[in-house]
Amino acid sequence: MFKKIGLKDIQALKEIFEENNVYDKNIEEEYAKDEMGTIVSFPEVRVVAHDKNEISSLMVYANQENIPVTVRGAGTGLVGGSVPVHGGILLDLSQMNKIIELDKTNLTLTVQPGLMLLDIYDAIEKEGLFYAPDPGEKTATIGGNIATNAGGMRAIKYGVTRDWVRGLEVVLPTGEIIKTGGKVVKNSTGYPLKELFVGTEGTLGIIVEVTLKLTSLPKFSASLLVPFVDAISAITAAPELIKRHVTPTAVEYIDQTSLAYSNQFLGKHIPHDTHDAYLLLSYDGNTQEALDDDIEQASKICIELGALDVYLIDTAERKSSVWSVRGAFLEAIKASTTQMDEIDVVLPRSNIAEYLDFTKEVSKDLAIRIPYFGHVGDGNLHIYFCKDNLDDKTWQATLNKGFELMYQKAFKLGGLVSGEHGIGFAKKKYMVDLLGETQINLMKGIKNVFDPKGILNPDKVI
Amino acid sequence: MFKKIGLKDIQALKEIFEENNVYDKNIEEEYAKDEMGTIVSFPEVRVVAHDKNEISSLMVYANQENIPVTVRGAGTGLVGGSVPVHGGILLDLSQMNKIIELDKTNLTLTVQPGLMLLDIYDAIEKEGLFYAPDPGEKTATIGGNIATNAGGMRAIKYGVTRDWVRGLEVVLPTGEIIKTGGKVVKNSTGYPLKELFVGTEGTLGIIVEVTLKLTSLPKFSASLLVPFVDAISAITAAPELIKRHVTPTAVEYIDQTSLAYSNQFLGKHIPHDTHDAYLLLSYDGNTQEALDDDIEQASKICIELGALDVYLIDTAERKSSVWSVRGAFLEAIKASTTQMDEIDVVLPRSNIAEYLDFTKEVSKDLAIRIPYFGHVGDGNLHIYFCKDNLDDKTWQATLNKGFELMYQKAFKLGGLVSGEHGIGFAKKKYMVDLLGETQINLMKGIKNVFDPKGILNPDKVI
Repeated sequence: MFKKIGLKDIQALKEIFEENNVYDKNIEEEYAKDEMGTIVSFPEVRVVAHDKNEISSLMVYANQENIPVTVRGAGTGLVGGSVPVHGGILLDLSQMNKIIELDKTNLTLTVQPGLMLLDIYDAIEKEGLFYAPDPGEKTATIGGNIATNAGGMRAIKYGVTRDWVRGLEVVLPTGEIIKTGGKVVKNSTGYPLKELFVGTEGTLGIIVEVTLKLTSLPKFSASLLVPFVDAISAITAAPELIKRHVTPTAVEYIDQTSLAYSNQFLGKHIPHDTHDAYLLLSYDGNTQEALDDDIEQASKICIELGALDVYLIDTAERKSSVWSVRGAFLEAIKASTTQMDEIDVVLPRSNIAEYLDFTKEVSKDLAIRIPYFGHVGDGNLHIYFCKDNLDDKTWQATLNKGFELMYQKAFKLGGLVSGEHGIGFAKKKYMVDLLGETQINLMKGIKNVFDPKGILNPDKVI
Repeated sequence: MFKKIGLKDIQALKEIFEENNVYDKNIEEEYAKDEMGTIVSFPEVRVVAHDKNEISSLMVYANQENIPVTVRGAGTGLVGGSVPVHGGILLDLSQMNKIIELDKTNLTLTVQPGLMLLDIYDAIEKEGLFYAPDPGEKTATIGGNIATNAGGMRAIKYGVTRDWVRGLEVVLPTGEIIKTGGKVVKNSTGYPLKELFVGTEGTLGIIVEVTLKLTSLPKFSASLLVPFVDAISAITAAPELIKRHVTPTAVEYIDQTSLAYSNQFLGKHIPHDTHDAYLLLSYDGNTQEALDDDIEQASKICIELGALDVYLIDTAERKSSVWSVRGAFLEAIKASTTQMDEIDVVLPRSNIAEYLDFTKEVSKDLAIRIPYFGHVGDGNLHIYFCKDNLDDKTWQATLNKGFELMYQKAFKLGGLVSGEHGIGFAKKKYMVDLLGETQINLMKGIKNVFDPKGILNPDKVI
């Protein structure tokens, strides 16, 4: 249905992007997959953009010639969102990574989409400013974060990426460039187009400029590592703690299994790591006294809720050791097996304990290893099915059966398919199961309004 | 183009809603307009709904018969959004005002759309819980707040209505009922339909159930009334204060003119009311010490920024006196004139001073009274053109000319048409001027996906 790329098209792309930014031979395998690596498909050509006008020209051409275009940032996605499943053009935005403006009066940061999260933190924290979304993968680009509406550990207190995007400049599939939102705190000016570009995984338009909201950086922060006798005690304590007290910046669940992976595969370990189950809590504040008070109250409530102890993680060294272990879980689980696939459900936090019990049953019934960790404060779990030494056929059958069981259970408990990683190519079936035909048809209708020829990131999300 | 309602239709409506909820004779004038009163158009029939299934049946019928349906909550809008400009059916949701569930574990409140804001605060604050959006009009319904993405005074710290809506149940123009979102903190599950129903002013679907996010209620709060020598000093101090310190919960600008209206027309006054220009700041915190510290720092910075004094507003009586005056400005300005119309622009906060200077010029050049007040912390201004004793023709001409000047200036300064009141029927022209054909066509395309016959709140927003 799409046109295959020929020599004439390559020539046209070289006119748009200059010759040395067009790669049509010996394309490296990394551009055929993302971080999860389960979906593999090569682009016919990769182009590296440096400027929004190039992107506009590209879309005019691709639209006219009916060639699919898939956008890639850092390729750190986990659901195949940036994989060019229909070949065509891979539009690489990783070099559009400039900071355009730090506006200290309006507290906004305007950047290109290919800028990595870690560079954003670097640029603003030295100015005493704060961009709160904190996804685990700090080498992801801000464009990718917006495309998936990335969440991260601080979502419970500070919200997700959507809540921190003030304005976007977007190239539409037709090549037109629009601006939506701006350096403004409120906006009730017509249909919320900005909101539509957030979380739609590059299917409606190409984000070419981003204006982010900033706030003043909280001056003090500390974490508590809180061991419990078992998983259920830790997980049921979380919503109770949140209810009784101020909102922590993060509430992570950590168990002995995850710690063992980090230890075994990455050689990383945390202090006091002999317990079976932990909550890792963080608090921040603008005075040491206010923070101390929150820490003291939280500790007291944790003990009332059955915690075995409360370890204060307040030095730079201890923070780094604990959070680097927490940050390494995905990598450690990946290193522990031959292949894996992931579930990223989000549930009402009251139902997490029941869901994780169910996960253990599935693991036992299907005789498959299913490690997990998660943001229990916000109800978002990351659950990994590990292939280990299963043969391909058994693995695929087990995966299909297990995912079916897991998603259906999540839906019964008020859960949704994805908390923060998106639908991409890998999770479409489960979204249809959850939302039903009416909602899917609305989504398809919207796609058709923005991209009548369906050339932008085809076959993704819907 | 739409069908006029006949006896057969009235009979059908009486079957759906029961006889005593269908009003087709002697419809009161209040149902032909909203709070602003500038757009007047009577419905052919008003129906009072009590249940989402009635609404679903209504839409099936209206869709089949090609009859327009306009939803009305409390009618407190200011841009004609709830006025049935094509006649047809006015769907009154004010009796769908039940609290369905307060979930203290997931910290959500599920309600019907006709519940008033003040009833929400009542229900949750006694439980130590907090719904942060704080629009001036407390008798507005939550459904109306969602339809306009209402903002309010605490937006600068806590965001707007959009940020507090976790889940929606919606009747589509075809009568189908869908659920989007849920009791979850994060969601990256497909196109953000929930976001599309927020701020689209009842043109894409009818909200029949709402799940709101709650947090724990901040335990302590206090306000500072800070006089400055003139408007420019007060307004330029605001962004500087926000930049140097923690984010206040509110930063309101008050001037002598507004105070005089409150005093003259409502008999309300504030303490220390002899100055020309004020910032009214609020802070909250979870301990008295943390709050005291913020207040002390804020006071110090205000003095550095040229404040003439800093008055602490911490007793219940003083708070009530100051905030009731602030809350009465709209009413007081309305009472001061024969007719008025409003501008609700939102600007980057760095540009407010320049914009208000321009407003004074326009007032002088056009010889018309233009009082204003505003949320200078979030850049959202409410500016009122007053008719006073102008004749109708002069008034209309002055209004047209003045609005054109005011909106064009706002756009030049990075502003948008509406910060929180919406576009409705009154502000469509200015939105087209700002956004241009491409964006308007995208919006029209979306409308057509949800409502192919265009029967739901026709001629609003786009």
